[in-house]
Amino acid sequence: MRFVGIRRDGGPVQVASLSDDGASVTVVAGLEEFWADAAGHLARTPDGETVAAADVRFVPPVLPGARVICIGLNYLKHVAEGSFAGEGVPPHPTLFARWTQSLTVGGAEVPVPSNEDGIDWEGEVMAYVGSTLVDATPDEALAAVVGYSTFNDLTSRRAQKLTSQWILGKNGDDSGPLGPLVPAGEVGDLRDGLRVQTRVNGEIVQDGCTDEMVYPVGDTLSLISHTFTLRPGDLLATGTPSGVGYARDPQWLLHPGDTVEVEVERLGVLTNTVVGNGARRGR
Amino acid sequence: MRFVGIRRDGGPVQVASLSDDGASVTVVAGLEEFWADAAGHLARTPDGETVAAADVRFVPPVLPGARVICIGLNYLKHVAEGSFAGEGVPPHPTLFARWTQSLTVGGAEVPVPSNEDGIDWEGEVMAYVGSTLVDATPDEALAAVVGYSTFNDLTSRRAQKLTSQWILGKNGDDSGPLGPLVPAGEVGDLRDGLRVQTRVNGEIVQDGCTDEMVYPVGDTLSLISHTFTLRPGDLLATGTPSGVGYARDPQWLLHPGDTVEVEVERLGVLTNTVVGNGARRGR
Repeated sequence: MRFVGIRRDGGPVQVASLSDDGASVTVVAGLEEFWADAAGHLARTPDGETVAAADVRFVPPVLPGARVICIGLNYLKHVAEGSFAGEGVPPHPTLFARWTQSLTVGGAEVPVPSNEDGIDWEGEVMAYVGSTLVDATPDEALAAVVGYSTFNDLTSRRAQKLTSQWILGKNGDDSGPLGPLVPAGEVGDLRDGLRVQTRVNGEIVQDGCTDEMVYPVGDTLSLISHTFTLRPGDLLATGTPSGVGYARDPQWLLHPGDTVEVEVERLGVLTNTVVGNGARRGR
Repeated sequence: MRFVGIRRDGGPVQVASLSDDGASVTVVAGLEEFWADAAGHLARTPDGETVAAADVRFVPPVLPGARVICIGLNYLKHVAEGSFAGEGVPPHPTLFARWTQSLTVGGAEVPVPSNEDGIDWEGEVMAYVGSTLVDATPDEALAAVVGYSTFNDLTSRRAQKLTSQWILGKNGDDSGPLGPLVPAGEVGDLRDGLRVQTRVNGEIVQDGCTDEMVYPVGDTLSLISHTFTLRPGDLLATGTPSGVGYARDPQWLLHPGDTVEVEVERLGVLTNTVVGNGARRGR
């Protein structure tokens, strides 16, 4: 089953299940109520109102104050292709931050900011934390993950590389589309291997597998929980495989009019289109 | 006048003005309502209910989804004392991220996380953005700043230095205390120079002036707005002067029982105490 965020008539965000054909949604709970017991809500059969998908606006099922923690270098071949290749595999997961304001959903148009030649794709898997974690073991941390979704960590490379810290280029408007959340029990362990593929205008540009990850989800969340307390609704983006655009020769970036898809086994296909910077002014 | 966030009986966050003696608060507006017209609310005389400070809980007057953008290297003498000294002054402001969950207020107890020998102080000035900024000029961006407050960017140095990216060590629980917001009109231009002093158990450890900043607030917000759209309620931490603990010989970090104060001219004194990691488990 797939879970999404919805808004109706400008009302508050609710979490809903999506029908198999995507034509309707069934309300599960309000956003805050959902995250107060995400595992419970995901285990029950949704019994709220069912409405046509055409009558709702899809939004990420993410609390505004949630932390979107992202692993920068987690697939060996991606480490080898990028700016940090000379430094080898980092000894710990390289964590950077997104704010929830950068998140959006499949179907959204993603602008190329004014300072960029284009934006780069990074197809990956997002993990959703369902409970509080303080000084957790890797097993405890992995058990707290209630679901996964597709994610495209669309990146403004110029801004990312302006200084030593990446976050400016990782928080462009609508630069973080998320697919529907799939319960962890239907996904299994990422270490067993889910195929992650990114396509640009139909052409395959990334084709990796989650069993290539250097830092498993449980280990990474455990590490984080020793510095700050993870809360229900926090997110972990697990990193992208090799094949990003800036590392190619010649460089290949997304431009207005391009379509980018991220497909992950068991999680589905996330499709977005790219538009010009002018789209930022009308929002 | 000073503005604070308050909660009463577990209700929603409101913004209130603080009386000169700190004994009472007068409600201005709900948090979302305040940020929908921050400049307007700050210009009017507060006319809501007045209640005793003892009857409210103080919280940051910050939207959960706000971005807390921080400048890492903005005072020349701090650049010279730190790990990046060999690289000189960076050509652009080095921006890192805090999530709002790391923020707290004066008086709060700040834990030393389990992986750390202590936490480090970074006294500074926080700027509050009051309107939407897309591709703004430095002048437009500076005009959008509605207020300033004291801020202590308390840092978990081990976590910060684990990898190339700093954010893990910059988001410890309750590691970002904020003082009351003072309207921009009462503060003036930081380039004219406000003294920033940090004291540990009464001993002066940082003593700088905001006229030493390499990257002014307007220029930095302008740069950011060319990559992502700044929204009302977003925050910019303007960086710390020299004198942090990890750069000293011998290193000096805060331990449970220590008191740290950040005093900024026209903004007041922000005082916090440090506690052990055990405090994280009870929250």
